[in-house]
Amino acid sequence: MLQVKTPEEVFRLIEEEFQPKERVMHSPLDFAQGRILAEDILAEEYVPDFDRSTVDGYALRAADTFGCSDALPAILNLVGEVKMGEGTEIAVPRGACVYVPTGGRIPADCDCAVMLEYTEDYGDGTVGIFKAAAPGQNLIFRGDDLRPGKLLLRAGRVLRPQDVGALAAIGKTEVPVRLDLTVGVLSTGDELVPADQKPGPGQVRDVNLPMLKALLRSVGAVPVDFGIVKDDEALLREKTALALSCCDGVILSGGSSAGVKDAACRVIESLGELLFHGIAVKPGKPTILGRAGNKPLIGLPGHPVAAYYVTQVFVLPLLARLSGQSLRRDRVKASLSESLNANHGRMQITPCRLETADGKTLAVPIRTKSGLISRLAEADGYLIIDRDCEGLEQGAAVEVYLS
Amino acid sequence: MLQVKTPEEVFRLIEEEFQPKERVMHSPLDFAQGRILAEDILAEEYVPDFDRSTVDGYALRAADTFGCSDALPAILNLVGEVKMGEGTEIAVPRGACVYVPTGGRIPADCDCAVMLEYTEDYGDGTVGIFKAAAPGQNLIFRGDDLRPGKLLLRAGRVLRPQDVGALAAIGKTEVPVRLDLTVGVLSTGDELVPADQKPGPGQVRDVNLPMLKALLRSVGAVPVDFGIVKDDEALLREKTALALSCCDGVILSGGSSAGVKDAACRVIESLGELLFHGIAVKPGKPTILGRAGNKPLIGLPGHPVAAYYVTQVFVLPLLARLSGQSLRRDRVKASLSESLNANHGRMQITPCRLETADGKTLAVPIRTKSGLISRLAEADGYLIIDRDCEGLEQGAAVEVYLS
Repeated sequence: MLQVKTPEEVFRLIEEEFQPKERVMHSPLDFAQGRILAEDILAEEYVPDFDRSTVDGYALRAADTFGCSDALPAILNLVGEVKMGEGTEIAVPRGACVYVPTGGRIPADCDCAVMLEYTEDYGDGTVGIFKAAAPGQNLIFRGDDLRPGKLLLRAGRVLRPQDVGALAAIGKTEVPVRLDLTVGVLSTGDELVPADQKPGPGQVRDVNLPMLKALLRSVGAVPVDFGIVKDDEALLREKTALALSCCDGVILSGGSSAGVKDAACRVIESLGELLFHGIAVKPGKPTILGRAGNKPLIGLPGHPVAAYYVTQVFVLPLLARLSGQSLRRDRVKASLSESLNANHGRMQITPCRLETADGKTLAVPIRTKSGLISRLAEADGYLIIDRDCEGLEQGAAVEVYLS
Repeated sequence: MLQVKTPEEVFRLIEEEFQPKERVMHSPLDFAQGRILAEDILAEEYVPDFDRSTVDGYALRAADTFGCSDALPAILNLVGEVKMGEGTEIAVPRGACVYVPTGGRIPADCDCAVMLEYTEDYGDGTVGIFKAAAPGQNLIFRGDDLRPGKLLLRAGRVLRPQDVGALAAIGKTEVPVRLDLTVGVLSTGDELVPADQKPGPGQVRDVNLPMLKALLRSVGAVPVDFGIVKDDEALLREKTALALSCCDGVILSGGSSAGVKDAACRVIESLGELLFHGIAVKPGKPTILGRAGNKPLIGLPGHPVAAYYVTQVFVLPLLARLSGQSLRRDRVKASLSESLNANHGRMQITPCRLETADGKTLAVPIRTKSGLISRLAEADGYLIIDRDCEGLEQGAAVEVYLS
């Protein structure tokens, strides 16, 4: 029998036993999206670096417009035009204005901009203003967006398109990001054939290698494929040692139970320190974690659905820990469509579909006598029932993790 | 003044005026993740192709165990062992059993499996069974997961890791996916310098090209960068025509208003059919859509925040239409942290942060006198206030689109 850890103990071990790898590379801005920011980014200059108009219109002194109206416009002298992308040294005396386009620089003498709609160019060198303006109106001031020293992006975030935009705004075109983690993956089992082969009697196609590689890529890690290994302990140890020598961590899929033929645990013990064998979770109980230095050695159940959920719930947070990443888990609040029994004493992970009925979001558990891969492909996500909960009633408020 | 379309009219035009491009490529399974499935995938065989045990234990006839108990075990003759990954021709007479590992093939004569925990091997060629079994117990039957003709994955879905696993299960290692869309991007404005240059007086760094390229990549499109173009209509037309000739669509950023210097609309009219100039949305009103054949010509506001949201809300659905993709928009239900006025008559897009207080998810609007790029980087998503809504009260139930 396995001496299982609770999920809470597993998460604590991940934090205690593994440290972020501090390796940094500098990514060109165009390839920074989806990568993990390695350092806090502070602005080093003012954005914008000058006071700008937010409208097409006239820059002027607000005081020159006080009391004007449709019936009694303020008449100002037009003394020039601000050109986009140029500095402007235009002097604007009292009672004068200059044309300014959206985004144009406001001359030093002016304190606001008036939209074209509230003005009329009389064509004789004067402009009528029909609406009183307030100082600061329609302006973005120097540094309104960013000032030197202001924190723009915090280390650990996965860079999104808008973050790339913000980095462009401050000229950060070489972005410090975490070097990708490399993770060796092996699948073990005498019954397994590669997905491109036709299974013979008693054989099945290996699902876990392609799926695990895709899961690893989904968080920016680089999978290294060491293939399918027969249930031969010496061979499995040799391949795992090779993977360990050239990767930041290794995932073994299959052979993780406590049976005679289940070699994963013995292989992991022989190559590093065993942290635990067994998690109080369903599916996924026969999961192993060891470490060799700061490199994790992970043994996953061969069952694809269990391997999938253990990776989602435990392995991806472990990789996030190693890569210094704050993992974002998108969740949706929903109402449970039917009551659901839970396995008291073990955290239960239930795949579900999301449906909408009467404007409410329903979480519909996907029931199956065993977790089949085709049912996993139907799921929009999963819900977690804590191990101290005996079940949930129909209509219960739940959170579905999108996956 | 612009003759604006409502958002509903824009979405209808996208459906009416553009058709999915039917180009298909065959991706190796390892590179299929994140791509758009081009065809429905049906299973062509049985998965599994044989009846399997879900436990380590003994395969037997359930009837031979009826009435047994801890006190009175059923004694069966052990006639063999099923080996993983092999066919089994073992004959199992009445009153006999065979050892079977998890995932092993069940001999034709047996109808269930009993877990090792409920048995004892007496070592004399007999095994005691302590718990009555029901027919079908602990078995996955042939075809339980998939049968020939069963729909596994529907065309249009973006392939996830578990979908890759399902494709592996049926041996689909060359996956029909949509050929990536190529989209030309140009930024126009005399004030713009590339992000890696230091702006001079009155100049700012171009944010939109790097941000738009990242947005395009986020939905699997391939951006083609035609650079920053000065406000010169002939030059802009020439570059846009070049982009149009070699891409599936073109996005012009900047110069999309109705002013004299705003050339985007005239350029788009000269190269194709103008569908509209202006959307009743804030921010993003000065947005242009044209088409040349089935290729969209899009004019975006130069303002980065407006360009960002117009792309999220309108351009990505247009690209999804072209690529035959069902766009998944992850949303979170939240409670509005403070009341919010809306711009009656225009759809309003408000960036917000998500915070948790007393177990409730709060949507905290990010207020700013103008949409600044640094505030966009703070946002966890955005909420949309319909154009016929005058505002929302504090505490209102809202949906935040994660972005």
